[in-house]
Amino acid sequence: MTAHGLPAPRWPLARRAERLEPSVIREILKVTERPGILSLAGGLPAPESFPVQAMREACARVLADAPSEALQYAASEGFGPLRDWVAAHLAQLGLQVPAAQVLITTGSQQGLDLVGKLLIDAGSRVAVESPTYLGALQAFAPYEPEFQALDCDEQGPLPQALAAAAGVRFLYLLPSFQNPSGRSMGAARRLEIVRAAAQAGVPLVEDNPYGELWYDAPPPPPLAAAAGEGAIYLGSFSKVLAPGLRLGYVAAPKALFPKLLQAKQAADLHTPGFNQRVAFEALRSGLLDTHLPQVRARYKAQRDAMRAALDRHLPPGCRFSVPAGGMFFWVELPERLDATALLPRAVDAGMAYVPGAPFYCHAPQRHTLRLSFVTVAPPQIEQAVAALGAVLRAALEAQR
Amino acid sequence: MTAHGLPAPRWPLARRAERLEPSVIREILKVTERPGILSLAGGLPAPESFPVQAMREACARVLADAPSEALQYAASEGFGPLRDWVAAHLAQLGLQVPAAQVLITTGSQQGLDLVGKLLIDAGSRVAVESPTYLGALQAFAPYEPEFQALDCDEQGPLPQALAAAAGVRFLYLLPSFQNPSGRSMGAARRLEIVRAAAQAGVPLVEDNPYGELWYDAPPPPPLAAAAGEGAIYLGSFSKVLAPGLRLGYVAAPKALFPKLLQAKQAADLHTPGFNQRVAFEALRSGLLDTHLPQVRARYKAQRDAMRAALDRHLPPGCRFSVPAGGMFFWVELPERLDATALLPRAVDAGMAYVPGAPFYCHAPQRHTLRLSFVTVAPPQIEQAVAALGAVLRAALEAQR
Repeated sequence: MTAHGLPAPRWPLARRAERLEPSVIREILKVTERPGILSLAGGLPAPESFPVQAMREACARVLADAPSEALQYAASEGFGPLRDWVAAHLAQLGLQVPAAQVLITTGSQQGLDLVGKLLIDAGSRVAVESPTYLGALQAFAPYEPEFQALDCDEQGPLPQALAAAAGVRFLYLLPSFQNPSGRSMGAARRLEIVRAAAQAGVPLVEDNPYGELWYDAPPPPPLAAAAGEGAIYLGSFSKVLAPGLRLGYVAAPKALFPKLLQAKQAADLHTPGFNQRVAFEALRSGLLDTHLPQVRARYKAQRDAMRAALDRHLPPGCRFSVPAGGMFFWVELPERLDATALLPRAVDAGMAYVPGAPFYCHAPQRHTLRLSFVTVAPPQIEQAVAALGAVLRAALEAQR
Repeated sequence: MTAHGLPAPRWPLARRAERLEPSVIREILKVTERPGILSLAGGLPAPESFPVQAMREACARVLADAPSEALQYAASEGFGPLRDWVAAHLAQLGLQVPAAQVLITTGSQQGLDLVGKLLIDAGSRVAVESPTYLGALQAFAPYEPEFQALDCDEQGPLPQALAAAAGVRFLYLLPSFQNPSGRSMGAARRLEIVRAAAQAGVPLVEDNPYGELWYDAPPPPPLAAAAGEGAIYLGSFSKVLAPGLRLGYVAAPKALFPKLLQAKQAADLHTPGFNQRVAFEALRSGLLDTHLPQVRARYKAQRDAMRAALDRHLPPGCRFSVPAGGMFFWVELPERLDATALLPRAVDAGMAYVPGAPFYCHAPQRHTLRLSFVTVAPPQIEQAVAALGAVLRAALEAQR
């Protein structure tokens, strides 16, 4: 009702709003905020890994040296020195891209949204891995694509699957320590995919939030390094500094950059300049040289703890691979178990995971689940996995 | 070329990408970064108005008291205490809305993008004021609406114009100290618009970034206060704290909130938690009680200086009204002058403005221009307006 007593007008929604859905993960995260739940669900970095002292010093320095600039409106492209830093960082990974083609985004999730906005028409086909990152499906979905899941093996998409993807707007893939599967693509496979994509005329959107989180050896160079103008590359500061800053970036082909920048302007004018300057201030002193080895050591120990706990507690018939980096174990249960249906029991038993089904755009594999090893320490990992094992055993018993 | 020597795939763009254009204002801002140019172009708050010391203290406190929470992933809705603060603040303005219907956004520009994403289909009609905020046109444009400019007078849209807007997805309006025109809607007109909108079944999207920047008397309560579930209200911290934090908010009808939240999740997961906590920390101590009167006094003096300078230097045939708040004077030149064509001469003369044409969705009035009085101090305002006056006189002379 309005103040005049007239009925308020109704709000017709855009058709794309039908494609917006609640985030399964965020709904689970709410449940797991209950005290006493050991959550292996969200991909939340260990708070102990945040470089808090460096952040303190960087904030103080930015507000001492350049308060007016840090608090003012800023360029949509991003803070120049941070763009330069990203270009230099990517060069170290093997990807040569001019800083002028680097766009700073409000988290790499925004990069996914901008890519969707720029490239997807209603009914456009978009190829993805199976399973794939849920947040990418959610970012692309409102632009109303038809998703096409490519055949995958333990390294990701099969090169021979690319021919069937001819005509897609792009192939979205996460070649290093994939979310959710934990799998990685070797150097030879990367080159095969780039070749097959070029032959099929398929542009690549390469997402690499976890590349720095390797525990055995660094991953091979990005696909974008071999793909030339045929790839968009997305990166993030969330896993190497902290997610609460919401800083990511897109390195785009020269021909795409102007439109990408205009989409960025329309979306939020620019990423917070204060945050960009704070991050740059922390990074310029070489923080990552000391910080990343510490983070890797922490997460490697947690990964090894989870591997040992899974070996100890999972009932027969469960399968998993050991991820060489990133944040996640992907577990396949015996096919007759449904991880979504079992989640409430796991929560009752004091732990939480993410069921695998939402990571599939088609034909969800309901007997899969994702476990994060980065959020809690080894003793809690042991305890949570033991609880999960008990729930699974009980479920198998009950079905016998 | 790829590393294999194959041609890189081409990137077909979405149809909506055609509707993305470079921001005229941002292009002008680049020109005005040349040293020595006095810019009255961008709506950049005076850096002297930023509460730097309060920011320093707030950053230090957040990183001392809650570093893990501030740097971690956070809720898409926004930081609870900041949402509560917004609800209480809106109540003071006369708008009662539960904190549960407040979404924190990455600047209010993101609020505009999310509104467009949720409500606009290709070909949907969207009603706007004429002229209207360029950034809103740019946020909505990629969703491919047909804009419908409503007849306006010196208070904004005419109530009788609403009948012709029946069937639009919404009417976007900026009732207090509008960008670019500086005009404001009185209390009676606000109620008339709400009534006419309800009668025509037209939902309202009310944008109020400047409401706190009043120099004579506070503006009347928001239209949303009378419109019930028939209005979305957008607010910003950019003008009362600092734009570099990129913090805004949307207060949405209860029925719309869930989809709005899902659009937000898809767009960037959440607005930086660190920034939200820093802003809340600064606000909770009552910063605005002391800070806003100082900002108002500064800008009022600058407004008065610009009024005097315009009276002194504009040639006969120019018209302007004195804004009661906000950031802008809107100047109508003699109709035979084209403000876009004259801009390079103004820049050569050492000053910059924004031509009025881009603020019109149809039938641009090329003899209009916008001047910001908030960025530079009275002596520079005098100097810049004098330079503008000389350019205009020369142009009129040349046409004689």
